Amino acid sequence: MHSIEELQQEIEKAMASLKIGSRPASLYDPAHYMLSLGGKRMRPLLVLAACEMTGGKINDAINAALGFELFHNFTLLHDDIMDNAPLRRGKPTVHEKWNTSTAILSGDAMFVKSVQLIQACGNRKVMDVFLSNALLVCEGQQLDMDFEKREDVSIDEYLEMITLKTAVLPGACLQAGALLASASEITASHLFEAGKNIGIAFQLKDDLLDAYGSEQFGKQTGGDILANKKTYLYLRSLQLLPESDALILKQLYTSKETGIQKVEAVKKLFDSVNIQEEIQQVMNDYFRLSLEHLEKTPVQKKNKLPLINLFDELMQRKK
Amino acid sequence: MHSIEELQQEIEKAMASLKIGSRPASLYDPAHYMLSLGGKRMRPLLVLAACEMTGGKINDAINAALGFELFHNFTLLHDDIMDNAPLRRGKPTVHEKWNTSTAILSGDAMFVKSVQLIQACGNRKVMDVFLSNALLVCEGQQLDMDFEKREDVSIDEYLEMITLKTAVLPGACLQAGALLASASEITASHLFEAGKNIGIAFQLKDDLLDAYGSEQFGKQTGGDILANKKTYLYLRSLQLLPESDALILKQLYTSKETGIQKVEAVKKLFDSVNIQEEIQQVMNDYFRLSLEHLEKTPVQKKNKLPLINLFDELMQRKK
Repeated sequence: MHSIEELQQEIEKAMASLKIGSRPASLYDPAHYMLSLGGKRMRPLLVLAACEMTGGKINDAINAALGFELFHNFTLLHDDIMDNAPLRRGKPTVHEKWNTSTAILSGDAMFVKSVQLIQACGNRKVMDVFLSNALLVCEGQQLDMDFEKREDVSIDEYLEMITLKTAVLPGACLQAGALLASASEITASHLFEAGKNIGIAFQLKDDLLDAYGSEQFGKQTGGDILANKKTYLYLRSLQLLPESDALILKQLYTSKETGIQKVEAVKKLFDSVNIQEEIQQVMNDYFRLSLEHLEKTPVQKKNKLPLINLFDELMQRKK
Repeated sequence: MHSIEELQQEIEKAMASLKIGSRPASLYDPAHYMLSLGGKRMRPLLVLAACEMTGGKINDAINAALGFELFHNFTLLHDDIMDNAPLRRGKPTVHEKWNTSTAILSGDAMFVKSVQLIQACGNRKVMDVFLSNALLVCEGQQLDMDFEKREDVSIDEYLEMITLKTAVLPGACLQAGALLASASEITASHLFEAGKNIGIAFQLKDDLLDAYGSEQFGKQTGGDILANKKTYLYLRSLQLLPESDALILKQLYTSKETGIQKVEAVKKLFDSVNIQEEIQQVMNDYFRLSLEHLEKTPVQKKNKLPLINLFDELMQRKK
């Protein structure tokens, strides 16, 4: 078995030599640019770790790992267009650097290539898992956009949205890794649930870090607040705040103001209901649920350690 | 064996009951709207016809047929965004009726569903054919966009572009149909070539009809001319015209004028080199090539008749 760091090296090596295509350059350059922006490579890591944990070899799963990473990057590329985002990991987004048409089409090509990589595994079940969850990711992104226009989003709806948009893919990665190691359906299902729940916890952590996380790094916080994004922090605060304060929070969330004052005002309301502790608790619940499913997979405890450590790191991260 | 009309009925029945998904409606309604706009359903027809011709059953190929049709509609949906097209088959395009983000995402979902339908066939080779040609279609669309900005597009480049953008998909449809009937690789390859060549002829016919076709139907012609689209008609005319007239044609193609005068002026130049006969001859060459490949497929002549008649119809069509 390999350590997480060794798996990460394998992934970087494979990513570096991955060629989606070459001609026309106007189609493939943007795709390669997108991949070159880096990222945590969390999804391929989950595929490989699950595969090794359940007795498979890296080589059996490397194509699937790349396929999931490529699919993830395709969704980011298209999401950036939809969100009109100027930057991705500090660099111009594809639609900014090139144009919207190129971003749409390069994304489409990345998507095709991601399916080809999954297909290269030669495992029908893995393809089924990949495709059904790919569709759920589209549904999650659509719900996210729908929620921007709605005032009555419930916490359950929010959790469903992040489950679809963000959490099922890590679940599918773990499930695919296990299936590629010829693990049983039950093992694979537990791993899907483990990935899904850590994915939800991960997104809640993201919400938290967006409002509070970067303070100690001297970075500006509150991007979600400025964008009036109805995150868990916001929705749960509305429930906990006295009616008059809830009204103020709602009003703050109607303004298009982008100054630090707005962020501070919102966070003061968040703080008044101890939202950080609130969200920490919910995160922990999902984290625990995730570990429970890991627990239930019929694999020697020591083989689970890399994944458990990885989950732990994800929960402890400060940015 | 079924007649083309019977196959068309099968396809309409299957399309009518095809559900990509239901929730969120904001994701799936646009996709179903797109499919409801109709069209010739040429690609599924090719899949079914090739399957029956080579000894297969409709039921073996219906999912693939729907998958190809869905993929085709996904490309139209995204192309419409890129082309900023207001109408599709006389109805508002998805990005006009909803918005660009919805059009991007609904297209993505259609694409996932199309792969799922191909996957449902359970035939690895068919998936390979589908995916490799899907990537080529993206390349063709990118080349088409690239050519808009280039003044030095050659006829060969144009033919390569339409081959990728338009012709390989009909090829893949016939090939897939044959593979689903467990035909030999050679039979499937001949059918791919037959489909590709009829696809090129089909696109050239489209070019011709765009400039000349609808006159007798009282419809406005010359959309390609008004859009300064460097079609075969334009590129070949440039080669055949005396230098001074070629210059005039080039100048006409720099104007953004959208009046009938421009169309008439361009067509006068086209007519002066008998471009209609020119293109008719090239079309016939591709048509013949297509029939030659059909000829070479080791199948009883009578079983080829539906496909031959269909090809013939495509070539004879007046709109």
